[in-house]
Amino acid sequence: MQKSRSGNFFEDFRVGMRIRHATPRTLTEGDRSLYIGLTGSRVALGTADTNAAQLGLARRPLEDLLVFNTAFGKTVPDISLNAVANLGYADVRFLAHVYPGDTLSVDSEVIGLKENSNRRSGVVYVRSSAHNQHGEAVLTWIRWVMVHKRDHAAACAEAVLPATEPVVLAARLWHGGYSPSVREICGMTGVDDLWEDYAAGERLDHPGAMTVNDSDHSIATRLYQNTARAHFDGFAMAAKGGQRLVYGGHIISLCKALSYDGLENALSILAINGGSHVNPTYAGDTIACATQVVAKPDLGLAHVGALRLRTIGIKNAAASTVVFAPAAAGKPAHPANVVLDLDYTIAMPRRGR
Amino acid sequence: MQKSRSGNFFEDFRVGMRIRHATPRTLTEGDRSLYIGLTGSRVALGTADTNAAQLGLARRPLEDLLVFNTAFGKTVPDISLNAVANLGYADVRFLAHVYPGDTLSVDSEVIGLKENSNRRSGVVYVRSSAHNQHGEAVLTWIRWVMVHKRDHAAACAEAVLPATEPVVLAARLWHGGYSPSVREICGMTGVDDLWEDYAAGERLDHPGAMTVNDSDHSIATRLYQNTARAHFDGFAMAAKGGQRLVYGGHIISLCKALSYDGLENALSILAINGGSHVNPTYAGDTIACATQVVAKPDLGLAHVGALRLRTIGIKNAAASTVVFAPAAAGKPAHPANVVLDLDYTIAMPRRGR
Amino acid sequence: MQKSRSGNFFEDFRVGMRIRHATPRTLTEGDRSLYIGLTGSRVALGTADTNAAQLGLARRPLEDLLVFNTAFGKTVPDISLNAVANLGYADVRFLAHVYPGDTLSVDSEVIGLKENSNRRSGVVYVRSSAHNQHGEAVLTWIRWVMVHKRDHAAACAEAVLPATEPVVLAARLWHGGYSPSVREICGMTGVDDLWEDYAAGERLDHPGAMTVNDSDHSIATRLYQNTARAHFDGFAMAAKGGQRLVYGGHIISLCKALSYDGLENALSILAINGGSHVNPTYAGDTIACATQVVAKPDLGLAHVGALRLRTIGIKNAAASTVVFAPAAAGKPAHPANVVLDLDYTIAMPRRGR
Repeated sequence: MQKSRSGNFFEDFRVGMRIRHATPRTLTEGDRSLYIGLTGSRVALGTADTNAAQLGLARRPLEDLLVFNTAFGKTVPDISLNAVANLGYADVRFLAHVYPGDTLSVDSEVIGLKENSNRRSGVVYVRSSAHNQHGEAVLTWIRWVMVHKRDHAAACAEAVLPATEPVVLAARLWHGGYSPSVREICGMTGVDDLWEDYAAGERLDHPGAMTVNDSDHSIATRLYQNTARAHFDGFAMAAKGGQRLVYGGHIISLCKALSYDGLENALSILAINGGSHVNPTYAGDTIACATQVVAKPDLGLAHVGALRLRTIGIKNAAASTVVFAPAAAGKPAHPANVVLDLDYTIAMPRRGR
Repeated sequence: MQKSRSGNFFEDFRVGMRIRHATPRTLTEGDRSLYIGLTGSRVALGTADTNAAQLGLARRPLEDLLVFNTAFGKTVPDISLNAVANLGYADVRFLAHVYPGDTLSVDSEVIGLKENSNRRSGVVYVRSSAHNQHGEAVLTWIRWVMVHKRDHAAACAEAVLPATEPVVLAARLWHGGYSPSVREICGMTGVDDLWEDYAAGERLDHPGAMTVNDSDHSIATRLYQNTARAHFDGFAMAAKGGQRLVYGGHIISLCKALSYDGLENALSILAINGGSHVNPTYAGDTIACATQVVAKPDLGLAHVGALRLRTIGIKNAAASTVVFAPAAAGKPAHPANVVLDLDYTIAMPRRGR
Repeated sequence: MQKSRSGNFFEDFRVGMRIRHATPRTLTEGDRSLYIGLTGSRVALGTADTNAAQLGLARRPLEDLLVFNTAFGKTVPDISLNAVANLGYADVRFLAHVYPGDTLSVDSEVIGLKENSNRRSGVVYVRSSAHNQHGEAVLTWIRWVMVHKRDHAAACAEAVLPATEPVVLAARLWHGGYSPSVREICGMTGVDDLWEDYAAGERLDHPGAMTVNDSDHSIATRLYQNTARAHFDGFAMAAKGGQRLVYGGHIISLCKALSYDGLENALSILAINGGSHVNPTYAGDTIACATQVVAKPDLGLAHVGALRLRTIGIKNAAASTVVFAPAAAGKPAHPANVVLDLDYTIAMPRRGR
């Protein structure tokens, strides 16, 4: 009756396999408060009920990245407990607002597999989705992760590589349901910059910086019920000559919070086109970031446009030192102090006529 | 008009004395979120409203150990502010679920006293109980604690030792009010192991481990409004050549959270039969644990059975190194890295026919 | 299209300038839980719904200093992002209770300016106010802060110094709306000391002490959406040979929480007459405090009186070492381990007949 709880290894995955992750999670105002306390988020939509009402929503939704990190955490015990590294994201789409009291159920389908040539590990591609208690999809995403093999000699099926697009096209973006009067956000933030005021190629050096403490990232990662050992087991990490790694999703949240200064009127994230955790972050590191406006997709709406952004997070250096090098042969070359390179699309009110 | 707030010393206690602890406490969704963030708890009942409904409860109750730690914290200013050490627990029984918005009132009765032979301190035995705002008992427990004397020369009454049972018998357990369809929990957790799948003597090495940070245990202990100085006053502890001690109840919560892997379908704790904080934990220590199934009490129900478990928590070592030595002459001999030895009883769905 | 987010410098302020701070903030039960977890607050009014009802309030209000710190945080990006130091407070008045779900809007008016003789900085005086979603004022305060000049050569208008009173007179205090039966608080706290039991000149050495962790003050300060860099950017602080400073408002909250022991029946803060953050606090410091009863203002009510208190916070020393030296020429001389000197007025039930 020996019970093993060692998680899935590379050879356990099959293309087409469907996993319903344990267990559904109800998010509440308590989670929102903790999210603000852990990240310093100041987005208008998440800060006040009155803001949400003015922007056209019945209630104040939970912040997009709180939803993303919670849904992501649900997949960890089944997908990435035995991961070497999380390699990338694609086609991350936010499809509905999540409100306090909503319950998220998360499932995944394996959509690709490729054993590494050293036969010690392989890359698993999954499409994961979160649905609310009404069965409505609220978030869907692809990620790929390098996973250890249990048995290096185990035979593996032929490689299947899923087609992933480098960007979520405007036609596939959900628009957030914002009211025509959404430009009233300027009265909330005190900043007048709207969609028309950003230019492709424009760079924003966000002035803030945030030192990460061990308890900050531990509390955040536990809040997401993410069980990846590398974030929590300092004893095992030290035995390997290392230390606990900060969960990459916490770095995304911190950079998003820092990016408020310069993007004050951003409504919410519509999509993450791609992203990579370039280098690890450890407690004691100070995170800063800069953003480049990559493109200005037209959503076909008079009152809301999209901004495709690239935010690069850096540790122990000023935001002004970030270099937006183009990707060479698919992979940008980054210095060792870059921790995040995120390509995402936000909704921004338009001034309109 | 000098006001002294030095708390009760050993000679201040009398058998039969009743203490109503200050003040009642309302618990909320905010406390639940913080509890998840501090412990990483993933129990089905506390994770989603939809889970609770499927298990037969009107709403999602607060987790048993959040209730226990909150109620315990209330007793500290009156019982253990001048404690040398918390020595043990007995007859801890969970009697009703606690929901967000419920208010707990806690009182204690002194049921035993025994001065130590060195006359510098003595052991105080108390029976404490928490009631909700409807006057319904939700939790009752016995603990004994060694308390300093203010005046070593003070005369003390003859010793009174209460009778404590080593285990809460099945007939005295509250069953949790779970619905006959409670085995649907398997669909939530994705794990099929139910009451029938555990055998007395079986051992579970829980795979996770958790490094404790100073802020983690400080926030937890403050959340419980527990004022014991040893957890908070680093300056005074350093002056004595020591450092802040992690509150033992936080270690119980961490071990309970880690024990999810292997006991995924556990519903809730019905009783704590006994337990001791064998050695102190400090910030920076990494906690792991293993559990032994001690017995399988039959509750006389077709859909729910009980598992009596012994969970041993260890610091800076793998769960596999835990040794379940039998208690010799009432006291198990533990190595210096054991921090917790807990004997408790949980509710687990039965497969039934 | 270069966007600068460098905040206001001294020469940007004009007397009479009005600033509406970004953005309104809704406070919830989640914020309350986090506040208790971060400070260890035990005040009766904030601990249980049943307490609030017995004291005459429809619901359990949020704690006064959670409201103060949240409202204060809102002013930081506009007023003190480029501050050298926060110099003082005056005429801080709590005007209405704030309940979970209430939304605070904060604005400020510049009421004084004085360039420093070195022409590198100047002192900005602002009157700030927080209103709830019904337009009702809940808090108003004056603070003055030394702010850098962007351009040392910039010309500045003649100095304008506002008149500030050293104490908020009883006639200007809001009484809190407590019921005539407010002395029932003794049944909640288990302590009988009421307004009549405190004497002007009486000293209270609060027995507790609290070591501040980096994550504690970071989470608190982020919860208040306070963006002052000195609290968060460890890299920049180290580059200047320093380290992150603990936000002064967190120290006020800690001292208030520690002062529970000795002032158990305090209802809420009615006013802060003045206060200064005498020396900085860093993570690792342990805070203790003592309070002197300065005066006993009569509110003209049979059931509630006021106590004007002076609480001095100290680091890495016992509360008993606090010296209540009178202010000499307006400024008390304090040793280097004093971190807070706060003059405030609380409501305390009267025994009455």
